[in-house]
Amino acid sequence: MHISSDFDGGNIECLACEKADDIQLNIRLDNQSEFYQWFYFRLTGAQGQACRLRLMNAADSAYADGWEGYQAVASYDREHWFRVETEYSNGELVINHRPLQNSVYYAYFAPYTMERHHDFIAAVSQSNRVSYERLGATLDGQDMDLLTVSDPELQLIDEEGNGTPKKPLWVIARQHPGETMAEWWMEGFLDRLLDQDDPVSRECLRRANFFVVPNMNPDGSRRGHLRTNACGANLNREWIGASMERSPEVYLVREKMKATGCDFCLDVHGDEALPYNFIAGGEGIESWNDRHQNLLDTFKDTLARISPDFQTEHGYPIDPPKSADLQKCTDYIAETFDCLSMTLEMPFKDTIDTPDELEGWSPERCRQLGRANLDAIFQMIDQL
Amino acid sequence: MHISSDFDGGNIECLACEKADDIQLNIRLDNQSEFYQWFYFRLTGAQGQACRLRLMNAADSAYADGWEGYQAVASYDREHWFRVETEYSNGELVINHRPLQNSVYYAYFAPYTMERHHDFIAAVSQSNRVSYERLGATLDGQDMDLLTVSDPELQLIDEEGNGTPKKPLWVIARQHPGETMAEWWMEGFLDRLLDQDDPVSRECLRRANFFVVPNMNPDGSRRGHLRTNACGANLNREWIGASMERSPEVYLVREKMKATGCDFCLDVHGDEALPYNFIAGGEGIESWNDRHQNLLDTFKDTLARISPDFQTEHGYPIDPPKSADLQKCTDYIAETFDCLSMTLEMPFKDTIDTPDELEGWSPERCRQLGRANLDAIFQMIDQL
Amino acid sequence: MHISSDFDGGNIECLACEKADDIQLNIRLDNQSEFYQWFYFRLTGAQGQACRLRLMNAADSAYADGWEGYQAVASYDREHWFRVETEYSNGELVINHRPLQNSVYYAYFAPYTMERHHDFIAAVSQSNRVSYERLGATLDGQDMDLLTVSDPELQLIDEEGNGTPKKPLWVIARQHPGETMAEWWMEGFLDRLLDQDDPVSRECLRRANFFVVPNMNPDGSRRGHLRTNACGANLNREWIGASMERSPEVYLVREKMKATGCDFCLDVHGDEALPYNFIAGGEGIESWNDRHQNLLDTFKDTLARISPDFQTEHGYPIDPPKSADLQKCTDYIAETFDCLSMTLEMPFKDTIDTPDELEGWSPERCRQLGRANLDAIFQMIDQL
Amino acid sequence: MHISSDFDGGNIECLACEKADDIQLNIRLDNQSEFYQWFYFRLTGAQGQACRLRLMNAADSAYADGWEGYQAVASYDREHWFRVETEYSNGELVINHRPLQNSVYYAYFAPYTMERHHDFIAAVSQSNRVSYERLGATLDGQDMDLLTVSDPELQLIDEEGNGTPKKPLWVIARQHPGETMAEWWMEGFLDRLLDQDDPVSRECLRRANFFVVPNMNPDGSRRGHLRTNACGANLNREWIGASMERSPEVYLVREKMKATGCDFCLDVHGDEALPYNFIAGGEGIESWNDRHQNLLDTFKDTLARISPDFQTEHGYPIDPPKSADLQKCTDYIAETFDCLSMTLEMPFKDTIDTPDELEGWSPERCRQLGRANLDAIFQMIDQL
Repeated sequence: MHISSDFDGGNIECLACEKADDIQLNIRLDNQSEFYQWFYFRLTGAQGQACRLRLMNAADSAYADGWEGYQAVASYDREHWFRVETEYSNGELVINHRPLQNSVYYAYFAPYTMERHHDFIAAVSQSNRVSYERLGATLDGQDMDLLTVSDPELQLIDEEGNGTPKKPLWVIARQHPGETMAEWWMEGFLDRLLDQDDPVSRECLRRANFFVVPNMNPDGSRRGHLRTNACGANLNREWIGASMERSPEVYLVREKMKATGCDFCLDVHGDEALPYNFIAGGEGIESWNDRHQNLLDTFKDTLARISPDFQTEHGYPIDPPKSADLQKCTDYIAETFDCLSMTLEMPFKDTIDTPDELEGWSPERCRQLGRANLDAIFQMIDQL
Repeated sequence: MHISSDFDGGNIECLACEKADDIQLNIRLDNQSEFYQWFYFRLTGAQGQACRLRLMNAADSAYADGWEGYQAVASYDREHWFRVETEYSNGELVINHRPLQNSVYYAYFAPYTMERHHDFIAAVSQSNRVSYERLGATLDGQDMDLLTVSDPELQLIDEEGNGTPKKPLWVIARQHPGETMAEWWMEGFLDRLLDQDDPVSRECLRRANFFVVPNMNPDGSRRGHLRTNACGANLNREWIGASMERSPEVYLVREKMKATGCDFCLDVHGDEALPYNFIAGGEGIESWNDRHQNLLDTFKDTLARISPDFQTEHGYPIDPPKSADLQKCTDYIAETFDCLSMTLEMPFKDTIDTPDELEGWSPERCRQLGRANLDAIFQMIDQL
Repeated sequence: MHISSDFDGGNIECLACEKADDIQLNIRLDNQSEFYQWFYFRLTGAQGQACRLRLMNAADSAYADGWEGYQAVASYDREHWFRVETEYSNGELVINHRPLQNSVYYAYFAPYTMERHHDFIAAVSQSNRVSYERLGATLDGQDMDLLTVSDPELQLIDEEGNGTPKKPLWVIARQHPGETMAEWWMEGFLDRLLDQDDPVSRECLRRANFFVVPNMNPDGSRRGHLRTNACGANLNREWIGASMERSPEVYLVREKMKATGCDFCLDVHGDEALPYNFIAGGEGIESWNDRHQNLLDTFKDTLARISPDFQTEHGYPIDPPKSADLQKCTDYIAETFDCLSMTLEMPFKDTIDTPDELEGWSPERCRQLGRANLDAIFQMIDQL
Repeated sequence: MHISSDFDGGNIECLACEKADDIQLNIRLDNQSEFYQWFYFRLTGAQGQACRLRLMNAADSAYADGWEGYQAVASYDREHWFRVETEYSNGELVINHRPLQNSVYYAYFAPYTMERHHDFIAAVSQSNRVSYERLGATLDGQDMDLLTVSDPELQLIDEEGNGTPKKPLWVIARQHPGETMAEWWMEGFLDRLLDQDDPVSRECLRRANFFVVPNMNPDGSRRGHLRTNACGANLNREWIGASMERSPEVYLVREKMKATGCDFCLDVHGDEALPYNFIAGGEGIESWNDRHQNLLDTFKDTLARISPDFQTEHGYPIDPPKSADLQKCTDYIAETFDCLSMTLEMPFKDTIDTPDELEGWSPERCRQLGRANLDAIFQMIDQL
């Protein structure tokens, strides 16, 4: 019986693995950081045994309140991830599972590796709607990948017969690398946006260019981090003060945004605690006004009407007026570009109103929500 | 060089096939009918030759006005269908095409054979949401296939904790067998409705059971008819007077509808002339009222908001009050069941506002519209 | 509860279908023929019921001895065919089966419809190694499809630097339409022959051109015949006397053979009785000689060495010298072209030495044997 | 314009990348080793530019003679790898290529990453013929994966009705991590061995159990090494002296071999220089005898008869008698287990007699050769 995690995105420390019913594990901290909560490891040699996997340091993780009601995911074939019995007690997160095979993987959520990321970037770049651009390097030397989705043949013609300018819309994901659902969401969103037979993508591209960053944090992704990049920076606290030394990922994207302009930004995340899909806006910014509020309300209501997996009742407390933290992406962009800027949050757990016992909130459901978001953008694109 | 059509859904008569630049053809009449317009045939032995295929009797076809602006479809592999240069002049429909291969198929629209139908019924019936029922026999002895889509585990719970009754919704297609787009539409509609990860289908099935007839006219489909069944009956003129002798297809479905009830009916068709997707309602029925009008308007507006391939500006003239023909499905059902009942029409040509030069209106675009229809149903299901 | 067979390749007559435990059926005779044994039908409305399907006229079928030890095949999804409990007693073939679904198909062997044939021809014709040719029409007006597989870029260069002539090899299947395994075999054989990465196909095409007729009997296939064409002719008794009036299928192929020459012919069949794959040769022809015997032995031994599903111990009795029937394909071709000419037989049942309880001899196993035959051809191609 | 290689299996050092026509690169050395020749990197931002990529230190690579006649591989989508114009002159390997896209990958041979390895292990482990076993850890802490392929239901029954013992056969690949063709070969070999419809795999498993190590060198694979493990050990020079400190990969496999026994071993490699597939035997061992020679000759001849991509004319010089190096796998196993033990070599370039201009020797051709090897094993399994 053995625990290993020395692979792309893996994270665990094994304290003891002699007895199946007392496997003692710790989640490793993000490098140069106090944060940790992402785990992803492989258990071998335990086929048919009743395993009790104890994550001993769960109580001090980044958001320990998130463990309540949480169930870990497991997979034999690394494609299909299912939920396994998990309890949070005495400060430990305990997974109770009798694996059917000699090799089984466990994770906080279905992993999305950097190798899958590279394959994804390569695959979507074959579309003639996509232009690839490398923005620069992360601290670990990985490429920051930007996809520009546009179609010059699609135009909105005004009354005088001229093509109208296209709006720059930004969609970014996975500032927090452990929130892998954000990149699964991207697969659905781009699948839809690149579908030449889809009238919604066609009309969107007639009116806008999309700037898409499927993975804002390659280093954290590969290192198996929860929330930070290679040097321990929480990228969503780096926007106004981004630097090439500490947060090149944000710096490079922010500078590109300044060059393209930004009429809309959606920043895709996962939330450890809330069993809902929801959106947080930039209500706390200095310049918040009725137009901002109206755009935000419209987007949320539109998405809620389209996707039953999205709702507007539950979410974060709304920021008080003028309380914004411009280090956060959503606030920074709302203030800087005077546009609709939002944070989309998906659960690590499941949607409590619409549960799926087997898989919980899953990669395929993330993709579906990604597809639905394009519908919502289309339905209000003329207001953006 | 040879013309053949002796296969599932084929229809042509070859008058002369000696010279590539003067291939003379007639479309065969529907059996015991004056209608004809559907054609589907194979040309062999003409690789690399500039072929001129003349459909000599096009002028007297069922809807000759439809030939203006029409382009025929062709395929080498029987999967991908593309448009070929076609002109309507001197009462002939002339296809000008230089085939790249020694075997090429031409058709009025991408064919949907009975064998594909059987495969489709068999495939979707593997879903645990589907119950198959044979309603009875056509005049040629084929099975009338009904799919009931429901999920007893999905319930809408009322305030007292009880499950609420589910509404019976009907969706039928291809009363006119040559309008094959209607069954391609069904593939998208059912693909969506059976997707367990799709929250829209889940919420629909929490509120309704769907009764789906993907092909109302198996005999006409296999015989290569445009508009009628085996004995020449136009099924959409048989609803109030349906009989087992002349129109068992309608009779069997109508009787089943009476047993299940009907809170919604969508009857899917193709239109020879108009280059638009549009909906016709039952405005001419005796009992037409504001509720009817409101439901109809809501559905059309909702679908138009969801799918840019659908529009509400162009369509058939609206029936004057109390002019309904209860032999038509939509009018019959609106009157009989006092519910929203509609005819959805798709083009044989293309959508003029959103053209696709290569394929025109295509099977995949039909599927997309089928998927969008489920969105529209979901967004107003509580009003049905 | 209902029995239907009005589809491509279907064959049954329903005498009684009121009681699940006493469904009475007859196999219909081939048109204008005494032969019958192929059945293929659909049972609807019997989900969960213990069905007893009695084929009442089994005793007088073409080869009643074949029913001993035979098990019928069934399918819900029309793709996966599995064996069901079957017994032959009191002159009836009785299928005992409790279907899990409301629609289930039963057949003598996994059906291969004409629509699947058309799709197959269209698919393989997309290979740049394939030239399609229509040889002419069957009595029902269907196309006789010939595939010529060759690659002009592949050459065997002799010592003087010239390309050597390529040998004409013929492979034909399904003279007897109910022997559908012969066309499943073709899928494997052509899959291999068209694989550009397969060195065996490459070397074969360096030395030979292949003339392939995947279906010698389209009319019988679509009509649901066992052994004859539309007018009741057993095509494998028509070779020396073939005529356009009675056996155009053979006539057209035979004339093409005369034009191309023939250095090898494999005629693929199924056998009702023997639970083995085996080959019958042309030992009875007038001109039989040691070279013929040696080629035949070599091919059989080579194939047996390659494929454990093939064997040389069991088979038909060897024709006595000079007893050949030149109406048979194998004898006719051996005598006419002085080449290796063989009949390959596969079982309707299973291979008794290597049984598969679930599927018996199956489409996939036919394909595998088709692939193995290309190996055998390659390993002795220089001797042909 | 930028060069990056910070991904799974990547290897390059970028000296200069300012001018497309003078991109200066070095291949990094294997860690703690003098060996290097494997390269794998990404070029971004060079779409449409005539790039000249100079591998400056090619002359001192592990086998510089191999660069003659060699062409590098490139890919846009990371799936399809094609050859690009490459020349070796003045001690540099120069790739001349005008990329069509802004992101393109170049490599010595189509890469096989550790992530693909994990996916492969997970996929094949879903077969009920496969048992997974972790043998232990590499120096970098990765798992050493062993697959045991067996089927207890398949037995060879002797005359007294008893099952006969099954022979232990070993197949291992990629001791040298840069020889990725060895693991592509494994995909074909295992695809065939796990195919339940394949009679060859069935008969093999009736007679033998297969012990398969698809990747002998995970650390070198992930680090982008040519020939060594994490500490610079050439694993094929470690067999008699393997230790957990320096060569745990070999030590763990060797000890397992001692436990299972070994009646056959095939060690799969790639060769930098020779444009042939060939086999090297253990002719230099002390105990070499006629039986050994006969087994070796039979296997080589059998494989050559089966696969035209394999040949017996060209290869390494045969080891003189009693000159064996028992640090090499093949010699060690031949001597230790007194069995047929061989090294299979595939080219980095192409097979000179059967070239493929577009892809050269390719992953799919590796897979085909893997499949053919199972045929060869089967045809002589009773002699092993």
